[in-house]
Amino acid sequence: MSGTTEIEQLIVMLSRLPGLGPRSARRAVLNLLRQPEARMLPLARQMERTAQSVKTCSQCGNLDTVDPCNLCTEPMRDHSTVCVVETVGDLWALERASVHRGVYQVLGGTLSALAGCGPDDLNTRSLLERIEAGGVKEVILALGATVEGATTAHWLQEKLSAYAVTISRVGHGVPMGGALDGLDDGTLAAALMARRSLG
Amino acid sequence: MSGTTEIEQLIVMLSRLPGLGPRSARRAVLNLLRQPEARMLPLARQMERTAQSVKTCSQCGNLDTVDPCNLCTEPMRDHSTVCVVETVGDLWALERASVHRGVYQVLGGTLSALAGCGPDDLNTRSLLERIEAGGVKEVILALGATVEGATTAHWLQEKLSAYAVTISRVGHGVPMGGALDGLDDGTLAAALMARRSLG
Repeated sequence: MSGTTEIEQLIVMLSRLPGLGPRSARRAVLNLLRQPEARMLPLARQMERTAQSVKTCSQCGNLDTVDPCNLCTEPMRDHSTVCVVETVGDLWALERASVHRGVYQVLGGTLSALAGCGPDDLNTRSLLERIEAGGVKEVILALGATVEGATTAHWLQEKLSAYAVTISRVGHGVPMGGALDGLDDGTLAAALMARRSLG
Repeated sequence: MSGTTEIEQLIVMLSRLPGLGPRSARRAVLNLLRQPEARMLPLARQMERTAQSVKTCSQCGNLDTVDPCNLCTEPMRDHSTVCVVETVGDLWALERASVHRGVYQVLGGTLSALAGCGPDDLNTRSLLERIEAGGVKEVILALGATVEGATTAHWLQEKLSAYAVTISRVGHGVPMGGALDGLDDGTLAAALMARRSLG
Protein backbone atom coordinates (compact mmCIF):
# COMPACT_ATOMS: atom_id res chain seq x y z
CA MET A 1 0.00 0.00 0.00
CA SER A 2 0.92 3.61 -0.15
CA GLY A 3 1.67 4.18 3.52
CA THR A 4 -1.51 6.25 3.78
CA THR A 5 -3.19 5.21 6.96
CA GLU A 6 -6.50 7.06 6.42
CA ILE A 7 -7.04 5.67 2.93
CA GLU A 8 -5.71 2.23 3.88
CA GLN A 9 -7.99 2.09 6.88
CA LEU A 10 -11.01 2.91 4.74
CA ILE A 11 -10.07 0.18 2.27
CA VAL A 12 -9.68 -2.35 5.10
CA MET A 13 -13.11 -1.44 6.48
CA LEU A 14 -14.79 -1.64 3.08
CA SER A 15 -13.08 -4.92 2.22
CA ARG A 16 -14.79 -6.55 5.22
CA LEU A 17 -18.21 -6.09 3.62
CA PRO A 18 -19.78 -9.20 2.11
CA GLY A 19 -19.15 -9.40 -1.61
CA LEU A 20 -16.17 -7.06 -1.46
CA GLY A 21 -12.56 -8.09 -1.15
CA PRO A 22 -9.40 -6.00 -0.92
CA ARG A 23 -9.31 -5.59 -4.69
CA SER A 24 -12.85 -4.30 -5.14
CA ALA A 25 -12.55 -2.16 -1.99
CA ARG A 26 -9.48 -0.49 -3.50
CA ARG A 27 -11.27 0.07 -6.80
CA ALA A 28 -14.26 1.57 -5.00
CA VAL A 29 -12.11 3.90 -2.90
CA LEU A 30 -10.02 5.03 -5.89
CA ASN A 31 -13.22 5.67 -7.79
CA LEU A 32 -14.69 7.75 -4.96
CA LEU A 33 -11.41 9.63 -4.42
CA ARG A 34 -11.60 11.07 -7.91
CA GLN A 35 -14.29 13.36 -6.52
CA PRO A 36 -13.89 13.32 -2.75
CA GLU A 37 -16.18 16.31 -2.20
CA ALA A 38 -18.79 15.45 -4.77
CA ARG A 39 -19.01 11.69 -4.29
CA MET A 40 -17.23 10.34 -1.22
CA LEU A 41 -18.50 12.94 1.23
CA PRO A 42 -22.19 12.59 0.26
CA LEU A 43 -21.90 8.80 0.54
CA ALA A 44 -20.27 9.12 3.97
CA ARG A 45 -23.02 11.45 5.17
CA GLN A 46 -25.81 9.30 3.79
CA MET A 47 -24.27 6.35 5.60
CA GLU A 48 -24.06 8.33 8.82
CA ARG A 49 -27.68 9.51 8.53
CA THR A 50 -28.84 5.96 7.86
CA ALA A 51 -26.87 4.51 10.77
CA GLN A 52 -28.28 7.12 13.10
CA SER A 53 -31.89 6.89 11.98
CA VAL A 54 -32.35 3.16 11.42
CA LYS A 55 -34.85 1.40 13.65
CA THR A 56 -36.17 -2.12 13.95
CA CYS A 57 -39.94 -2.13 13.49
CA SER A 58 -41.55 -3.23 16.75
CA GLN A 59 -44.43 -4.79 14.83
CA CYS A 60 -42.72 -6.86 12.15
CA GLY A 61 -38.94 -6.63 12.67
CA ASN A 62 -38.28 -4.82 9.38
CA LEU A 63 -35.51 -2.18 9.27
CA ASP A 64 -36.70 1.35 8.60
CA THR A 65 -36.22 4.91 9.77
CA VAL A 66 -39.62 4.94 11.43
CA ASP A 67 -41.24 2.58 13.91
CA PRO A 68 -43.72 1.11 13.02
CA CYS A 69 -42.14 0.74 9.58
CA ASN A 70 -43.56 2.13 6.35
CA LEU A 71 -44.85 -1.29 5.36
CA CYS A 72 -46.82 -1.76 8.56
CA THR A 73 -48.42 1.66 8.23
CA GLU A 74 -48.93 1.57 4.46
CA PRO A 75 -52.63 1.95 3.66
CA MET A 76 -54.19 -0.91 1.70
CA ARG A 77 -51.91 -3.51 3.29
CA ASP A 78 -53.84 -6.59 4.33
CA HIS A 79 -52.98 -7.04 8.01
CA SER A 80 -54.85 -10.33 8.16
CA THR A 81 -52.14 -12.09 6.11
CA VAL A 82 -48.70 -12.22 7.71
CA CYS A 83 -45.75 -13.52 5.72
CA VAL A 84 -43.00 -14.91 7.97
CA VAL A 85 -39.45 -14.52 6.61
CA GLU A 86 -36.01 -15.22 8.02
CA THR A 87 -34.28 -11.92 7.26
CA VAL A 88 -34.94 -8.33 6.22
CA GLY A 89 -33.22 -9.23 2.94
CA ASP A 90 -35.91 -11.84 2.30
CA LEU A 91 -38.61 -9.26 3.05
CA TRP A 92 -37.05 -6.82 0.58
CA ALA A 93 -36.84 -9.55 -2.07
CA LEU A 94 -40.57 -10.26 -1.73
CA GLU A 95 -41.34 -6.53 -1.83
CA ARG A 96 -39.27 -6.04 -4.98
CA ALA A 97 -41.26 -8.83 -6.58
CA SER A 98 -44.53 -7.20 -5.37
CA VAL A 99 -46.00 -10.62 -4.67
CA HIS A 100 -47.33 -10.12 -1.15
CA ARG A 101 -50.14 -7.70 -0.30
CA GLY A 102 -50.13 -8.44 3.41
CA VAL A 103 -47.66 -7.62 6.15
CA TYR A 104 -44.55 -9.41 7.36
CA GLN A 105 -42.83 -10.92 10.36
CA VAL A 106 -39.03 -11.01 10.27
CA LEU A 107 -37.71 -13.79 12.50
CA GLY A 108 -34.14 -12.59 12.32
CA GLY A 109 -32.78 -16.08 11.71
CA THR A 110 -33.66 -19.74 11.86
CA LEU A 111 -33.42 -22.36 14.56
CA SER A 112 -29.86 -23.62 14.35
CA ALA A 113 -27.91 -25.48 16.99
CA LEU A 114 -24.75 -24.78 15.00
CA ALA A 115 -25.29 -21.02 14.97
CA GLY A 116 -26.50 -21.16 18.58
CA CYS A 117 -29.89 -19.75 17.60
CA GLY A 118 -32.74 -21.09 19.72
CA PRO A 119 -36.48 -20.30 19.94
CA ASP A 120 -35.85 -17.34 22.24
CA ASP A 121 -33.56 -15.71 19.69
CA LEU A 122 -36.28 -15.54 17.06
CA ASN A 123 -38.53 -12.52 16.81
CA THR A 124 -41.91 -14.21 17.24
CA ARG A 125 -43.46 -12.32 20.15
CA SER A 126 -44.89 -9.48 18.06
CA LEU A 127 -46.39 -12.09 15.71
CA LEU A 128 -48.12 -13.86 18.61
CA GLU A 129 -49.31 -10.52 19.97
CA ARG A 130 -50.81 -9.65 16.60
CA ILE A 131 -52.51 -13.03 16.39
CA GLU A 132 -53.80 -12.77 19.96
CA ALA A 133 -55.15 -9.29 19.27
CA GLY A 134 -57.25 -10.90 16.53
CA GLY A 135 -57.41 -9.96 12.89
CA VAL A 136 -54.75 -12.36 11.58
CA LYS A 137 -56.33 -14.99 9.36
CA GLU A 138 -53.35 -16.54 7.58
CA VAL A 139 -49.67 -16.96 8.36
CA ILE A 140 -47.55 -17.78 5.31
CA LEU A 141 -44.21 -19.37 6.17
CA ALA A 142 -41.74 -18.11 3.53
CA LEU A 143 -38.65 -19.70 5.01
CA GLY A 144 -35.71 -21.07 3.09
CA ALA A 145 -35.86 -24.62 1.75
CA THR A 146 -32.97 -25.64 4.00
CA VAL A 147 -32.75 -27.96 6.99
CA GLU A 148 -32.84 -24.94 9.32
CA GLY A 149 -35.71 -23.35 7.40
CA ALA A 150 -37.73 -26.57 7.54
CA THR A 151 -36.98 -27.06 11.24
CA THR A 152 -38.05 -23.52 11.98
CA ALA A 153 -41.22 -23.87 9.89
CA HIS A 154 -42.12 -27.07 11.72
CA TRP A 155 -41.52 -25.51 15.13
CA LEU A 156 -43.51 -22.40 14.22
CA GLN A 157 -46.38 -24.51 12.88
CA GLU A 158 -46.58 -26.35 16.23
CA LYS A 159 -46.45 -23.08 18.12
CA LEU A 160 -49.20 -21.50 16.03
CA SER A 161 -51.46 -24.57 16.05
CA ALA A 162 -52.96 -23.29 19.30
CA TYR A 163 -54.48 -20.34 17.43
CA ALA A 164 -57.28 -20.17 14.93
CA VAL A 165 -55.15 -19.14 11.98
CA THR A 166 -54.50 -20.83 8.65
CA ILE A 167 -50.84 -21.74 8.27
CA SER A 168 -49.33 -22.22 4.84
CA ARG A 169 -45.87 -22.40 3.38
CA VAL A 170 -44.48 -21.24 0.05
CA GLY A 171 -44.30 -23.85 -2.69
CA HIS A 172 -41.14 -25.71 -3.56
CA GLY A 173 -40.22 -26.79 -7.07
CA VAL A 174 -38.48 -25.86 -10.29
CA PRO A 175 -37.57 -22.15 -10.31
CA MET A 176 -39.21 -20.22 -13.15
CA GLY A 177 -36.83 -20.08 -16.11
CA GLY A 178 -34.79 -22.92 -14.68
CA ALA A 179 -33.87 -26.10 -16.52
CA LEU A 180 -34.36 -29.41 -14.73
CA ASP A 181 -30.89 -30.50 -15.75
CA GLY A 182 -29.11 -28.16 -13.35
CA LEU A 183 -31.27 -28.77 -10.28
CA ASP A 184 -30.34 -30.82 -7.24
CA ASP A 185 -32.13 -34.01 -6.24
CA GLY A 186 -34.02 -32.36 -3.38
CA THR A 187 -35.58 -29.76 -5.67
CA LEU A 188 -36.49 -32.38 -8.26
CA ALA A 189 -38.13 -34.52 -5.58
CA ALA A 190 -40.03 -31.50 -4.23
CA ALA A 191 -41.15 -30.55 -7.74
CA LEU A 192 -42.48 -34.06 -8.41
CA MET A 193 -44.25 -34.11 -5.04
CA ALA A 194 -45.84 -30.73 -5.81
CA ARG A 195 -47.10 -31.83 -9.24
CA ARG A 196 -50.48 -30.62 -10.40
CA SER A 197 -52.99 -32.36 -12.53
CA LEU A 198 -53.60 -30.59 -15.82
CA GLY A 199 -56.54 -32.80 -16.76
CA MET B 1 -37.91 -2.04 -1.84
CA SER B 2 -39.15 -1.29 1.61
CA GLY B 3 -40.29 2.29 1.09
CA THR B 4 -37.40 3.44 3.24
CA THR B 5 -35.90 6.40 1.51
CA GLU B 6 -32.78 6.76 3.70
CA ILE B 7 -31.78 3.11 3.37
CA GLU B 8 -32.79 2.95 -0.28
CA GLN B 9 -30.80 6.07 -1.06
CA LEU B 10 -27.70 4.57 0.56
CA ILE B 11 -28.11 1.38 -1.46
CA VAL B 12 -28.45 3.37 -4.68
CA MET B 13 -25.27 5.33 -3.91
CA LEU B 14 -23.29 2.21 -3.01
CA SER B 15 -24.53 0.32 -6.06
CA ARG B 16 -22.91 2.95 -8.30
CA LEU B 17 -19.45 1.93 -7.12
CA PRO B 18 -17.41 -0.15 -9.55
CA GLY B 19 -17.68 -3.85 -8.76
CA LEU B 20 -20.93 -3.44 -6.84
CA GLY B 21 -24.42 -3.81 -8.21
CA PRO B 22 -27.80 -3.40 -6.53
CA ARG B 23 -27.61 -6.90 -5.11
CA SER B 24 -24.20 -6.59 -3.45
CA ALA B 25 -25.01 -3.05 -2.30
CA ARG B 26 -28.11 -4.39 -0.55
CA ARG B 27 -26.13 -7.19 1.06
CA ALA B 28 -23.48 -4.75 2.25
CA VAL B 29 -26.05 -2.36 3.71
CA LEU B 30 -27.99 -5.15 5.44
CA ASN B 31 -24.72 -6.44 6.86
CA LEU B 32 -23.77 -3.01 8.19
CA LEU B 33 -27.27 -2.37 9.56
CA ARG B 34 -26.93 -5.30 11.92
CA GLN B 35 -24.65 -3.07 13.95
CA PRO B 36 -25.39 0.50 12.85
CA GLU B 37 -23.51 2.09 15.75
CA ALA B 38 -20.60 -0.32 15.86
CA ARG B 39 -20.00 -0.82 12.15
CA MET B 40 -21.86 1.54 9.85
CA LEU B 41 -21.14 4.73 11.76
CA PRO B 42 -17.35 4.13 12.02
CA LEU B 43 -17.23 3.36 8.29
CA ALA B 44 -19.18 6.55 7.50
CA ARG B 45 -16.84 8.63 9.64
CA GLN B 46 -13.70 7.04 8.22
CA MET B 47 -15.04 7.83 4.76
CA GLU B 48 -15.76 11.41 5.73
CA ARG B 49 -12.27 11.86 7.25
CA THR B 50 -10.67 10.40 4.16
CA ALA B 51 -12.70 12.58 1.79
CA GLN B 52 -11.80 15.67 3.76
CA SER B 53 -8.11 14.94 4.15
CA VAL B 54 -7.16 13.45 0.79
CA LYS B 55 -4.66 15.40 -1.29
CA THR B 56 -2.96 14.88 -4.62
CA CYS B 57 0.81 14.86 -4.16
CA SER B 58 2.27 17.87 -5.99
CA GLN B 59 5.46 15.92 -6.68
CA CYS B 60 4.21 12.61 -8.07
CA GLY B 61 0.42 12.76 -8.33
CA ASN B 62 -0.20 10.02 -5.74
CA LEU B 63 -3.22 10.32 -3.44
CA ASP B 64 -2.41 10.76 0.24
CA THR B 65 -3.40 12.78 3.27
CA VAL B 66 -0.16 14.75 3.14
CA ASP B 67 1.52 16.67 0.34
CA PRO B 68 4.20 15.68 -0.60
CA CYS B 69 2.98 12.12 -0.12
CA ASN B 70 4.48 9.56 2.22
CA LEU B 71 6.23 7.83 -0.65
CA CYS B 72 7.99 10.98 -1.85
CA THR B 73 9.20 11.75 1.67
CA GLU B 74 10.01 8.19 2.68
CA PRO B 75 13.69 7.91 3.61
CA MET B 76 15.75 5.45 1.55
CA ARG B 77 13.64 6.02 -1.58
CA ASP B 78 15.82 6.39 -4.65
CA HIS B 79 14.75 9.71 -6.18
CA SER B 80 16.95 9.18 -9.22
CA THR B 81 14.65 6.45 -10.56
CA VAL B 82 11.13 7.57 -11.44
CA CYS B 83 8.51 4.99 -12.40
CA VAL B 84 5.77 6.47 -14.58
CA VAL B 85 2.33 4.89 -14.16
CA GLU B 86 -1.12 5.69 -15.51
CA THR B 87 -3.14 5.66 -12.30
CA VAL B 88 -2.82 5.70 -8.52
CA GLY B 89 -4.16 2.13 -8.63
CA ASP B 90 -1.14 1.10 -10.71
CA LEU B 91 1.17 2.80 -8.21
CA TRP B 92 -0.46 0.91 -5.33
CA ALA B 93 -0.13 -2.38 -7.22
CA LEU B 94 3.63 -1.84 -7.66
CA GLU B 95 3.97 -0.85 -4.00
CA ARG B 96 2.12 -3.96 -2.85
CA ALA B 97 4.53 -6.03 -4.89
CA SER B 98 7.48 -4.09 -3.38
CA VAL B 99 9.26 -4.16 -6.71
CA HIS B 100 10.25 -0.51 -7.09
CA ARG B 101 12.69 1.26 -4.77
CA GLY B 102 12.46 4.62 -6.50
CA VAL B 103 9.69 7.21 -6.70
CA TYR B 104 6.71 7.53 -9.01
CA GLN B 105 4.96 9.82 -11.43
CA VAL B 106 1.21 9.30 -11.84
CA LEU B 107 0.05 10.55 -15.24
CA GLY B 108 -3.62 10.31 -14.35
CA GLY B 109 -4.50 8.65 -17.64
CA THR B 110 -3.23 7.91 -21.12
CA LEU B 111 -3.39 9.76 -24.40
CA SER B 112 -6.74 8.84 -25.85
CA ALA B 113 -8.68 10.65 -28.53
CA LEU B 114 -11.72 8.60 -27.60
CA ALA B 115 -11.62 9.63 -23.94
CA GLY B 116 -10.70 13.19 -24.97
CA CYS B 117 -7.43 12.98 -23.04
CA GLY B 118 -4.62 14.98 -24.66
CA PRO B 119 -1.03 15.80 -23.63
CA ASP B 120 -2.16 18.74 -21.49
CA ASP B 121 -4.42 16.48 -19.45
CA LEU B 122 -1.55 14.29 -18.30
CA ASN B 123 0.36 15.11 -15.14
CA THR B 124 3.87 15.44 -16.58
CA ARG B 125 4.95 18.89 -15.44
CA SER B 126 6.19 17.79 -12.03
CA LEU B 127 8.18 15.02 -13.74
CA LEU B 128 9.86 17.50 -16.10
CA GLU B 129 10.56 19.82 -13.16
CA ARG B 130 12.20 17.00 -11.27
CA ILE B 131 14.29 16.08 -14.29
CA GLU B 132 15.26 19.71 -14.91
CA ALA B 133 16.24 20.11 -11.28
CA GLY B 134 18.71 17.28 -11.86
CA GLY B 135 19.07 14.07 -9.96
CA VAL B 136 16.82 11.90 -12.11
CA LYS B 137 18.86 9.23 -13.89
CA GLU B 138 16.24 6.80 -15.12
CA VAL B 139 12.60 7.02 -16.07
CA ILE B 140 10.82 3.66 -16.19
CA LEU B 141 7.63 3.69 -18.25
CA ALA B 142 5.26 1.25 -16.52
CA LEU B 143 2.26 1.88 -18.73
CA GLY B 144 -0.35 -0.62 -19.77
CA ALA B 145 0.33 -2.85 -22.79
CA THR B 146 -2.60 -1.28 -24.64
CA VAL B 147 -2.78 0.94 -27.70
CA GLU B 148 -3.25 3.98 -25.45
CA GLY B 149 -0.42 2.89 -23.15
CA ALA B 150 1.93 2.37 -26.07
CA THR B 151 0.96 5.70 -27.65
CA THR B 152 1.55 7.49 -24.36
CA ALA B 153 4.89 5.73 -23.85
CA HIS B 154 6.01 6.73 -27.34
CA TRP B 155 4.96 10.34 -26.84
CA LEU B 156 6.66 10.52 -23.44
CA GLN B 157 9.83 8.98 -24.83
CA GLU B 158 9.97 11.71 -27.50
CA LYS B 159 9.32 14.40 -24.91
CA LEU B 160 12.04 13.11 -22.57
CA SER B 161 14.61 12.56 -25.31
CA ALA B 162 15.70 16.17 -24.86
CA TYR B 163 17.00 15.33 -21.39
CA ALA B 164 19.98 13.28 -20.28
CA VAL B 165 17.96 10.51 -18.67
CA THR B 166 17.79 6.81 -19.42
CA ILE B 167 14.30 5.80 -20.52
CA SER B 168 13.14 2.22 -20.15
CA ARG B 169 9.86 0.40 -20.22
CA VAL B 170 8.60 -2.62 -18.31
CA GLY B 171 8.97 -5.98 -20.04
CA HIS B 172 6.14 -7.67 -21.87
CA GLY B 173 5.64 -11.42 -22.03
CA VAL B 174 4.08 -14.45 -20.40
CA PRO B 175 2.74 -13.57 -16.91
CA MET B 176 4.36 -15.60 -14.13
CA GLY B 177 2.23 -18.65 -13.41
CA GLY B 178 0.41 -18.24 -16.69
CA ALA B 179 0.03 -20.97 -19.32
CA LEU B 180 0.77 -20.07 -22.93
CA ASP B 181 -2.47 -21.69 -24.01
CA GLY B 182 -4.68 -18.97 -22.61
CA LEU B 183 -2.72 -15.98 -23.84
CA ASP B 184 -3.63 -13.70 -26.71
CA ASP B 185 -1.57 -13.42 -29.88
CA GLY B 186 -0.10 -10.04 -28.94
CA THR B 187 1.30 -11.36 -25.66
CA LEU B 188 2.71 -14.45 -27.36
CA ALA B 189 4.39 -12.28 -30.00
CA ALA B 190 5.80 -9.98 -27.32
CA ALA B 191 7.06 -12.96 -25.32
CA LEU B 192 8.86 -14.40 -28.37
CA MET B 193 10.38 -11.01 -29.20
CA ALA B 194 11.60 -10.68 -25.61
CA ARG B 195 13.23 -14.14 -25.59
CA ARG B 196 16.51 -14.58 -23.78
CA SER B 197 19.38 -16.84 -24.65
CA LEU B 198 20.01 -19.47 -22.00
CA GLY B 199 23.22 -20.69 -23.64
